[in-house]
Amino acid sequence: MNKEFLIKVHNRVKPFIHKTPVLTSQLINEIVGANVYFKCENFQKMGAFKMRGATNAILCLTEEERNKGVVTHSSGNFAQALSLAANKTGVNAYIVMPENAPLVKKNAVKGYKGHIIESESTPMAREEMAEKVKLEKDATFIHPSNDTSVIHGQGTAAIELLEEQPQLDCILTPVGGGGLIAGTALAAKYFSEKCKVIGGEPKNADDAFRSKKSGKIEYNESVDTIADGLRTHLGDKNFPIIKADVESIILVEEEAIIDAMKLVWERMKIIIEPSSAVAFAALLKEKEQFKNKEVGIIISGGNVDVTNLPF
Amino acid sequence: MNKEFLIKVHNRVKPFIHKTPVLTSQLINEIVGANVYFKCENFQKMGAFKMRGATNAILCLTEEERNKGVVTHSSGNFAQALSLAANKTGVNAYIVMPENAPLVKKNAVKGYKGHIIESESTPMAREEMAEKVKLEKDATFIHPSNDTSVIHGQGTAAIELLEEQPQLDCILTPVGGGGLIAGTALAAKYFSEKCKVIGGEPKNADDAFRSKKSGKIEYNESVDTIADGLRTHLGDKNFPIIKADVESIILVEEEAIIDAMKLVWERMKIIIEPSSAVAFAALLKEKEQFKNKEVGIIISGGNVDVTNLPF
Repeated sequence: MNKEFLIKVHNRVKPFIHKTPVLTSQLINEIVGANVYFKCENFQKMGAFKMRGATNAILCLTEEERNKGVVTHSSGNFAQALSLAANKTGVNAYIVMPENAPLVKKNAVKGYKGHIIESESTPMAREEMAEKVKLEKDATFIHPSNDTSVIHGQGTAAIELLEEQPQLDCILTPVGGGGLIAGTALAAKYFSEKCKVIGGEPKNADDAFRSKKSGKIEYNESVDTIADGLRTHLGDKNFPIIKADVESIILVEEEAIIDAMKLVWERMKIIIEPSSAVAFAALLKEKEQFKNKEVGIIISGGNVDVTNLPF
Repeated sequence: MNKEFLIKVHNRVKPFIHKTPVLTSQLINEIVGANVYFKCENFQKMGAFKMRGATNAILCLTEEERNKGVVTHSSGNFAQALSLAANKTGVNAYIVMPENAPLVKKNAVKGYKGHIIESESTPMAREEMAEKVKLEKDATFIHPSNDTSVIHGQGTAAIELLEEQPQLDCILTPVGGGGLIAGTALAAKYFSEKCKVIGGEPKNADDAFRSKKSGKIEYNESVDTIADGLRTHLGDKNFPIIKADVESIILVEEEAIIDAMKLVWERMKIIIEPSSAVAFAALLKEKEQFKNKEVGIIISGGNVDVTNLPF
């Protein structure tokens, strides 16, 4: 791994993604006491950074592999991302979704021409079904977060952020499955001399915090958090990167996530999803640590049901 | 009036305002069947284009006038805009607000250091109180929409939009008091050979539509619309411009306003207020008229109570 490799990844995905804007707010800078740069992946295609990793994963396949298609299990943003990335590159995407997934999520996948395959809603049933589809179609399984090409693709958001704001002292990202923070850590390592990467994680799904502490992958016993994108656990591909190159993980309470989300909506006039608000909530919680610093935040996505808000 | 004059206005206000971004959405282009460019004044300081007009009006005063302060009556975005513009230029702003104005609006004005003077809530009581303050303080009265300097200032949003997208066939704006659409019409006239200006207006507050038809200023009998920024009527300063240089006004139903607002929130991930959605709703309603055209829209503002949404 080196900078040239990551530049190649970025050039590979560029034609298929948006270069999202970096927004700032004087008022938020005043509240935080630091200069904060929001990398707005809520404006990314399909509304989340996941488009980057999904695209890179597909473009890294051989032509033969592409002809056979890709399969994943996800009911969240990665389901839509893989469907859209596959659609844009002329590949079939098989998406294993729990049969009780919300209709709006199923329709989004269908809108991007993904082929939905229903399974029971337990993690084991989903994995078994994905394995079955993989064998039947001879398709390539692409994990939403624990896949090397996906991790590299997710890192391109931080590459763009650092190209625009090379003076950053740190970048905050939410931590869910670990793909975004691992990719960001690689980008920071090779595109900056000093930029640290820090995670924000819901206290109610603190597996990554505990994993970093114990040195091995820990799992959540419950995942009672509004940040529905962060309920998953780390994997063997991203955890070594997180262990080595992520500075720390800050835990935040549910109320703080909702307050942070509302503050961004009201002051910045942009729609961010609860998972994105987790990173900003971490910054608000640990203001002192970031005082007068140059702070980047990856706003991971903006896919929210606006008819069902927590405030 | 000529192009050079408007360039001077723009240069005058530039140091005090944001150059707001112009956003596009492939999906919205597909829905509309045209290329649509959203000039995002919801990202303007204090959250609305009104900052432009208020700033220009204050900067056009003599030093003596500035020392005595400015006064207006408004409970909406102009109250905040004049307060902030005055604050940034070291001027006192006296804001006449109805005593029953929502606390959140009063607090916003106070946050920007405006001096609130309460009146009864009838239009006549507000005007009388503004006149009283004007005499007492020897302050300059600045009308929220029917003031020449305000109109010129509002036009700077369209100047920026046309600088970025000179190929535009038309620009849509909402119509309330008439300041924005009149300023936009002047900008289009002097910064484009072909760009037409079209208004969107709530059917439930259709005074501008009727004024344009009858050739004289008409008034609303009722103003039962969610687009609370558009309940006002035109004035003798902006109506002659609207009469001469606005192509047409399209009326939209309340349901269409709410649908248009929701579509922008969900697809573009930006927060726009109902008044802004009126212009987009007009475009959606008259799709055929705009087919394959290059269409600009001034997204007038993003000040919404996110805890009380119409969807």
